[in-house]
Amino acid sequence: MTQTSKNIAIIGSGLVGSLLAIYLRKLGHTITVFDRRPDIRTIEFSGRSINLAMSNRGWKSLRKVGLEERIKEIAIPLDKRAMHVNEKPVYFQKYGKEGEAIWSISRGILNKKMIDFAEEAGAKFRFNEKVWDVSLPDAKIFTGESEKSEWKEYQFDIIFGCDGAFSRVRHKMQRRSRFDYSQDFLDVGYKELTIPANPDGTHKLNKNSFHIWPRGRFMLIAMPNIDGSFTCTLFLPFEGEVSFEKITNKAEATGFFKTYFPNVRKEIENLTSDFFKNPTSAMVTMKCYPWTYWNKVALVGDSAHAIVPFYGQGMNAGFEDIFMLNQLMETHGDDWDTIFKLYQEQRKPNADAIAELSYRNFVEMSSKTADPKFLLQKKIEKRFAQRHPDKWIPVYSRVTFSERPYAEALAIGDRQEEIMQQIMQMPNIEEQWDSEAVEKKLLGLLNNIEGH
Amino acid sequence: MTQTSKNIAIIGSGLVGSLLAIYLRKLGHTITVFDRRPDIRTIEFSGRSINLAMSNRGWKSLRKVGLEERIKEIAIPLDKRAMHVNEKPVYFQKYGKEGEAIWSISRGILNKKMIDFAEEAGAKFRFNEKVWDVSLPDAKIFTGESEKSEWKEYQFDIIFGCDGAFSRVRHKMQRRSRFDYSQDFLDVGYKELTIPANPDGTHKLNKNSFHIWPRGRFMLIAMPNIDGSFTCTLFLPFEGEVSFEKITNKAEATGFFKTYFPNVRKEIENLTSDFFKNPTSAMVTMKCYPWTYWNKVALVGDSAHAIVPFYGQGMNAGFEDIFMLNQLMETHGDDWDTIFKLYQEQRKPNADAIAELSYRNFVEMSSKTADPKFLLQKKIEKRFAQRHPDKWIPVYSRVTFSERPYAEALAIGDRQEEIMQQIMQMPNIEEQWDSEAVEKKLLGLLNNIEGH
Repeated sequence: MTQTSKNIAIIGSGLVGSLLAIYLRKLGHTITVFDRRPDIRTIEFSGRSINLAMSNRGWKSLRKVGLEERIKEIAIPLDKRAMHVNEKPVYFQKYGKEGEAIWSISRGILNKKMIDFAEEAGAKFRFNEKVWDVSLPDAKIFTGESEKSEWKEYQFDIIFGCDGAFSRVRHKMQRRSRFDYSQDFLDVGYKELTIPANPDGTHKLNKNSFHIWPRGRFMLIAMPNIDGSFTCTLFLPFEGEVSFEKITNKAEATGFFKTYFPNVRKEIENLTSDFFKNPTSAMVTMKCYPWTYWNKVALVGDSAHAIVPFYGQGMNAGFEDIFMLNQLMETHGDDWDTIFKLYQEQRKPNADAIAELSYRNFVEMSSKTADPKFLLQKKIEKRFAQRHPDKWIPVYSRVTFSERPYAEALAIGDRQEEIMQQIMQMPNIEEQWDSEAVEKKLLGLLNNIEGH
Repeated sequence: MTQTSKNIAIIGSGLVGSLLAIYLRKLGHTITVFDRRPDIRTIEFSGRSINLAMSNRGWKSLRKVGLEERIKEIAIPLDKRAMHVNEKPVYFQKYGKEGEAIWSISRGILNKKMIDFAEEAGAKFRFNEKVWDVSLPDAKIFTGESEKSEWKEYQFDIIFGCDGAFSRVRHKMQRRSRFDYSQDFLDVGYKELTIPANPDGTHKLNKNSFHIWPRGRFMLIAMPNIDGSFTCTLFLPFEGEVSFEKITNKAEATGFFKTYFPNVRKEIENLTSDFFKNPTSAMVTMKCYPWTYWNKVALVGDSAHAIVPFYGQGMNAGFEDIFMLNQLMETHGDDWDTIFKLYQEQRKPNADAIAELSYRNFVEMSSKTADPKFLLQKKIEKRFAQRHPDKWIPVYSRVTFSERPYAEALAIGDRQEEIMQQIMQMPNIEEQWDSEAVEKKLLGLLNNIEGH
């Protein structure tokens, strides 16, 4: 079904705002994108962000508008984790099957490209223009220099709020009665650090790996960039015994890296200087409902569901919002009431599911990945999955390498975990983990559940 | 320990703001209370609120400043529930032991009195003055006609936000990083209705009862006023088969009351006219943390923890905040950092507990109170409590008639519920509910738990 052309405003020129602009231009709408910040292409990008991990849902959404190959040019495939556990050589864990990978990509570089593509598609961008107020029932927006200055008024048919976790559009919706909302911060913060390229431009660590130094309550991760450098992120509690508040000078920072990350000791000079140059940031899970206001306003991406970064799904989830919206627009044409209603009803349970999975993954990445019992469990699961690929798809693969709903991945993952808890209680599981008995018991438990 | 006199602003002249003003005046502080609304004593009170149920925690807090007896003059004790189940005569359930009661009191009348008392104590009130902004680190507030008008600036030593569930002070704290916040609305709304007094000024229903018409997904309640009338509250889903959205005209309203509340049929004319005169309101559970900013700003009452009204504890919880703050001020003198730190740390778990208990009580009041199995369980509990008053205090009594922490009441209530679930699964429990076997099993289960 085709749509009548509408005059549409998108608030926010980030990844989700830019991709949505491209989709809506393909459908023939007139698009104006507002951003309070300057054009990211004209400024030195601050780099204050974790590198992104593009996976299936993201690629699917780019492919639909013909951008997959052009974005792959600026991405590096990672097919495994590289685990840096103290007093052990680095070891590797494949993410999925042959050919399955997540792709490391710099947020800044990607965002610049996406804005280029949106402009090519005919979207108009208004940078340095801050939206102070939104009139929801008539889709008006008000921009200006400051909250108290003279405001400029714009009239649109539809407004999309793609303005992130601290969305101004959502803020306006939040003042209405019966708007559910929550923001929950982690007690763990993060800081970006850099490992520069070798003098010859090559990578100092294995290029096609997602590097993790798990340390229990904290961890360091590193993802490669196309210039040979690695973007590292240190996740560390704000307060407590080992924490950001305890590292106040260069000597303490050097001591911290030497003690906990000895295998990056050559990089310590650089890491330590970054430590005091870069800010410490907080991480929030934000949920809200509803996501739409009549047929006038809709929230897409982080403004509707901000999640913590431990599953690498924030951008992928936002891109999938757009993919789904597009399907609804193709099916329901000009019936925007139905499009917005189905969008929020179908998408909300999946947003909640990836929020939960992302929160849990911090515990898994920082502590469990160094726990022998957990590693044994993963080994058993892996063996079983290889022998019965139709019966056991790991939750990580369901989230990362499939297009099935997040909510399904969470539900099946919970059932698998229940089964594995029973398996791990089998006597001498350490010795008999690859026995026929274990395999039989697993098959039996799976059948029981299917019979429910 | 005495305190050095401070210049303190209280935002909000509601029940909590007025009582806090009285406490702080007793400690010698200079108090200015701001309210964006006009002086409630000078206007016809809209009455748009459920009657309040003052219980132990509220009385304790009033007693401390010598107000208990003066407030009892405008309150009516209710020592029982009056249950109006269709096709059954009204039956009564005592709330507690002899002499234990909750007290029905009109929010408007109480608030007017409290402002009088606060003025008598020397607090200064500034009505019709809206706070638009708060500078947290230096305790400044900014008031004015509108968001865009010229603002007036005030400098204080300390600010208390007593400005309710949609607090402006909290709103300002919420913009900071690492501020946890949630608001959750019920799908059930409420509407206030009135049953007027008899011509001779007497009450049309039993005066010393809290009246409930439980109807599963919805219910009607009524609480007496000192003028002979009853304030009724209809709790009903916003949408669905039987809901506010389905009652759009007088005939539908009359039909609704005739069908579901036949024993108030004489009042239907009045109820029906109120139905369209009075607004439908929403109910929210609001949680946040932290509640304080350094030694400068603190949230008290609904601004820190708004709860749904089904336990009658909203005001009681707010008053207890003040009682506890006062204890801390008496202990820690001028160390406001410690006072605020301990206030939020000690009070937060109790606020979360009463939020949970209040939410659960809606289910209990509207559906379970008409369920034979539930009534049997309550009968068993009651019998046991009477025979072993030292071993079994019902959670309702712990919340309503004790001064022990809400969190303790919730934890013990959950343990009691686990035990009762096992008792209710005993064979032929309907016949042997008052047998020695049941009593023995209960004692055994209680001992097991205590042995943990």
